[in-house]
Amino acid sequence: MRFSVVVEVSGLEGIADPEGQTIERALPALGFEGVADVRVGKLIRLHLEAPDETTAYERAGELCRRLLANPVIERYEVAVSPLAGTG
Amino acid sequence: MRFSVVVEVSGLEGIADPEGQTIERALPALGFEGVADVRVGKLIRLHLEAPDETTAYERAGELCRRLLANPVIERYEVAVSPLAGTG
Repeated sequence: MRFSVVVEVSGLEGIADPEGQTIERALPALGFEGVADVRVGKLIRLHLEAPDETTAYERAGELCRRLLANPVIERYEVAVSPLAGTG
Repeated sequence: MRFSVVVEVSGLEGIADPEGQTIERALPALGFEGVADVRVGKLIRLHLEAPDETTAYERAGELCRRLLANPVIERYEVAVSPLAGTG
């Protein structure tokens, strides 16, 4: 079966987010007021072949730990859903 | 009122995604098979002060067009929800 996997990788609480800070500082010059707490993370979408949803979820988690996220400074969140039209 | 805004910025269909391709090529060496169509985008979370949800949604869209996304090569998707505990 084929699964659609969505992974969000974001900085751990307390870890500096220079991209978010840069966006936040640029906003007043563009006329935007009232924006705060900007955090920038990564969203990775992929397709995964696996026998069932549990296995797909486990493989996606391993993928995060080994390649997509750095657990020292980042957290990740995985969502798995079956791809329509595949058996 | 304070709103929580989540913005996904991703490459338009047909635009090269070198980060996704690099991940995809690295996977077999790590023992991952059956992974395809890797696409990497950005996920931006922020808090926004606005009188109501419609205004919050419009301001977030303008923020995307003017700063967060490059509409020539990227698409964006905005989700807005009220922050609990604020009036």
